[in-house]
Order: sequence, then structure tokens, then C-alpha cells
Amino acid sequence: MKVVVTGAAGFIGSSTTDALLAAGHQVVGIDNFSTGSVRFLERAVGEPGFRLATLDLLESGDALPDLFRGADAVIHLAANADVRFGWNTPDRDLKQNIVVTHNVLEGVRVAGVPRLLFSSTGSVYGEATVIPTPEDCPFPIQTSLYGASKLAGEGLIAAYAEGCGITTTVFRFVSIMGARYTHGHVVDFMRQLNEDPTKLTILGDGKQRKSYLDVTDCVAAILDRLPRTGGHEVYNLGVEDYCTVDQSAGWICERLGLRPDVTYTGGDRGWIGDNPFIYLATAKMRAIGWEPAYTIRQAVERTVDYLSNNTWILTRQEVRT
Amino acid sequence: MKVVVTGAAGFIGSSTTDALLAAGHQVVGIDNFSTGSVRFLERAVGEPGFRLATLDLLESGDALPDLFRGADAVIHLAANADVRFGWNTPDRDLKQNIVVTHNVLEGVRVAGVPRLLFSSTGSVYGEATVIPTPEDCPFPIQTSLYGASKLAGEGLIAAYAEGCGITTTVFRFVSIMGARYTHGHVVDFMRQLNEDPTKLTILGDGKQRKSYLDVTDCVAAILDRLPRTGGHEVYNLGVEDYCTVDQSAGWICERLGLRPDVTYTGGDRGWIGDNPFIYLATAKMRAIGWEPAYTIRQAVERTVDYLSNNTWILTRQEVRT
Repeated sequence: MKVVVTGAAGFIGSSTTDALLAAGHQVVGIDNFSTGSVRFLERAVGEPGFRLATLDLLESGDALPDLFRGADAVIHLAANADVRFGWNTPDRDLKQNIVVTHNVLEGVRVAGVPRLLFSSTGSVYGEATVIPTPEDCPFPIQTSLYGASKLAGEGLIAAYAEGCGITTTVFRFVSIMGARYTHGHVVDFMRQLNEDPTKLTILGDGKQRKSYLDVTDCVAAILDRLPRTGGHEVYNLGVEDYCTVDQSAGWICERLGLRPDVTYTGGDRGWIGDNPFIYLATAKMRAIGWEPAYTIRQAVERTVDYLSNNTWILTRQEVRT
Repeated sequence: MKVVVTGAAGFIGSSTTDALLAAGHQVVGIDNFSTGSVRFLERAVGEPGFRLATLDLLESGDALPDLFRGADAVIHLAANADVRFGWNTPDRDLKQNIVVTHNVLEGVRVAGVPRLLFSSTGSVYGEATVIPTPEDCPFPIQTSLYGASKLAGEGLIAAYAEGCGITTTVFRFVSIMGARYTHGHVVDFMRQLNEDPTKLTILGDGKQRKSYLDVTDCVAAILDRLPRTGGHEVYNLGVEDYCTVDQSAGWICERLGLRPDVTYTGGDRGWIGDNPFIYLATAKMRAIGWEPAYTIRQAVERTVDYLSNNTWILTRQEVRT
């Protein structure tokens, strides 16, 4: 297949790109390198089936039909993926996650691409009333700009599926871990421990319950659903398990051989819009044979190992525009 | 109270404005007059408590904090309200219903307005799996750009409620009927019958089941919920009843004293994204004492009477940008 991957230089985008190339697909990767890294594409750029387009999807919507023409699928992974800092720049989620998704959809429609796959999030469930949360849980109330912007993207995609006959697949992820992980609590904790291995500050009370999935399991699901034809489908992706932030911190410290003094900022959530309990039901995806290879603890440990071997991620300047 | 009404020259906006003024509130009305009519504000402009601001909410977001400052509530009714023609201009719903709602939310946040009320739609339920459809029905799949754009607006509003402590109220309307109704099937049918009283063409097979609510009942619900304080609430608004498009056509013709030959375009829906069965559960709104004064048939008949007395609506050029 010829596949376009947006956000191809990102954590999940570059992993998806490598997996597609390894499976013999042709890939057009798009990225504006605002948060993505050229290092993540080092393997891909050497492949004859790979083509890179450096492009801002917000500003260059008009260029998309030409880039998309002839593709069998667009995997739209480009996004502002930071759920925590939404209120610093309230229009970032609007632009990067809603307007950009609209631009991609218009490109798909005009170019006649038959398939679109999209990375949504378990954050669209807000504070779910049913846990583990299935795809058809009660109509949720949004609690974060990030979740709201992904919900908006999902809605536009479903409308395009209905109106234009595009096959659309939406994945609602738990937090993704593993190789090329660049932001989230593991990076935050390891940055702190890099600076002072005797101290660790945890946002909230450490009792928040979270679910994590290794990126290879995430990418396997995306590739499994890639050739799907017909209608709009939504799949939760996660391990059928959860851990507390305290547990995760314990695994991280154990892996690093550290025993820091832990302090808590307090409260039952880490930040405004933080969800104190995320745990997704994945029966729908499991019913078609998908199964995560890694446990939640392994996913966290693989992230620690990756970051230990790639300390440039811990020391680079964060872009928070 | 000092209340800002966006879309104040529109069908529901002008009706809300008149009701607010009659109840002794001060009103700042905002409209860009793209689809609104100065005629609908003839009563309001004579009132000392009314001030009109002619403004495009898409382009003039920066002006909103100044306009909003000191207001006790913003009632955000400005929207592209046309569910049928979304695919002619796929970015209209994005701009008018998502970006504009974001601009209004930013104005509310920056100005420190404590309350926001919002007109959403039963279209956010897509093709509902539970009928009559309650507010907490299973997570819906969108079928129209209009519904998707209103869902996006709802999500952003809920996120602002959580993040900024604004009291937010979302109403999901069935189709609203009555005085100042300007678009929809009653206008379409009466236009046809104006041209040739012996013929009527109905989109679809006429068996689509729809629900209608008179605008006075809609506005009564908005004013009832206006002083509410705390959190994010969603209320369906409709009569607890439905009719077929055939029945509605029959009531319209009977009211006009006509017996046209009826032909059907065929299919179980009138257009792409048309919903063959809309019927909302309204127990939540009824539990606080609200009750529609008009039946579904009365709502249709009052619309016919209004349009018969205001034929300028039937003859004016439609703006479909």
C-alpha cells in the first residue's frame, strides 16, 4: 500500500513509519518538526520506499490533495499531544487538533483517498462513569481541552465517513510508552532524578490510576486495521490493567536503582483536567485477535531503558508554544 | 442581569432577546447579519435595556472581552444552523460553529463572565441507538458536519467549565418552529406551494420521523436555566412526541387549505447525513418544572401562520455561502 503518515517524525508517527516500511509499504511522511525529531526518522530516510515532506498542516492545507493523491490510506497522527499544558495556550488544541484534522480530511476528500486512520485518546471519556470504559459508554462530559479537541476530530472524521464514503478508523489510546517516548510522567520523573537522584516530586497524591501501552503494541493495532474497508469504527487501545502513579514511580526508581524521598503536590489529580482513573475496555480490539505483548510494568520499564540510552531527550529544551 | 446574546438577529436569538428584555434584563445583542434580520430586532432596538453590536465573531474575537466585561451570562446562539448543505462548503461548520465557539469561550474566560449557555442540537446523537434519546445515551457516532461541529462546541465548553470554573449550560434542541422561523422544511414546502399550489415534492420517502418544538417553549427553557450556578449541565429540549414528514406536510397543507399532488425523491432520508428518526427524552428538563406549552402539530401550524403573515421570508434570497 501507499500510506501517508502525518506527524511522521513524532513518537508514534516514526514508529508507525518504520513498521510500515518493514512490512513493505510505501510511506509519505509529513511533519513540521515542531515537536518531532529528525533522529526518529534516521532509519526511514535510508529506505527507498520513504519520502519526507516537511510541511505545516495548519498553514499548508492547500498542498495536501497533491501529496495525498494515489495513497491507499492516510494515518493522521500529527497533533498537539500534551494534555497537561492546554490552558497555557488555549488555541493550540483548537488549531493543531481540530483545524489540522479538518485540513487533513479535506485533503483526503479532494484527493479521493479511500481510508483514514486517526489517533484519538481515552481522554475523550472525561471522568468516565463506566470503568473499564467501553467504546459505547454513556455520552461523556469533556474535562480537558486536549480531550475536547480529539473528540472534535473524531466527530469530523465520522461525518466525513458518512458524507464521503471514506473508511475511517479511530483509535482511543491510553498513554503510550516505550522507544521514542518524549513527554509525560516518565520523562518528568527521570529529569528530576537526573538533577537530584535523592528527591522525587509527584503531582497529585500518587493515587491516580493510569493505564499504559507499549508503542509496539499500539503500532501493531494500527497496521492490523490499516486494510479495513467500509464505514466508521472506533477501537480502544490499552492493556486491560492499570497502575497507580506511585506504582509506576516505584518501577521507574527500581529500574534506575534509586530510592529517592518522594513528596506529593497533593490533591487527587495532577493538574486541571487530569483524569484520576483511566482504564479502557479493549474487548472490541481483542475480538479481532490483537493482544498486547507487553504488560503495563514492562511498558514503563522499556520507557526507562530507552530514555537511559537516549538522554538527549531528557536534556533537550521543551517546546511549549 | 446583564446578558450578552450572540446571533441576536437570528430566529432563536431575537426571540431570546425579546424575552430577556420583557423580563427586565439588559441585553447586548451581537450579530453579523449574515443570516439574521434587522426586522427581528425591531422591537428590541426601541428598548432602553438593549444595545446592538454588529460584529463578525469569527474575525473580531479580540473585541469580545471588552463587549463581555461585566456581563452575568453569555447566551451563545450564533451558528451556522443549516444541517442540510454542509457538504457544499465543508469549512463553514468548522469556522462558524467550532472556531467561533472557541472565540466566544476565550472572550468569556478573559472577561471573567460567570455563565455561558449554548444552543446545541439533537443532531449530535447521529443515528441514536436509544430512542427516545436521553442526554447520557451511548457515545454517539456523528453523521453530519453540523452535528460534529456542535459536538465539538459542546466539548470545548465542557473543558472550559472544568478548567475555568464557568457555569455552562448546553441545550440539545430538536428542530425549533414558530415565529421568525426562516429555514427548514416548512419554508421549503411553502415556497413550493407558493409557486404551484397543486404540487409538493418531499425529500426522501416522507416516513422520516422528526420532532419539533415551538420557539417560545425553547426560549422559556433558556430563561429558566439562565441563573443556574455551578458546573456543566446538558439538557435535551423537545416535545416528547414525533411525527412523520408526511404528517407534517398534511398539517401544513390543511392549514393552507391546499391539497397538492405529493411526489417523493425516495430513500429513507432527505439528504446525506439526514437523520431518519429524531426523538429526544426530556425527563431531565421536565424534572425541574419545564413543560412545552405547544404540541408538535401546534408548533408546525404556528410556523405556517407566521410565514403566511410574513411572506418576505418565503421570497427573500437564501444566502448559501
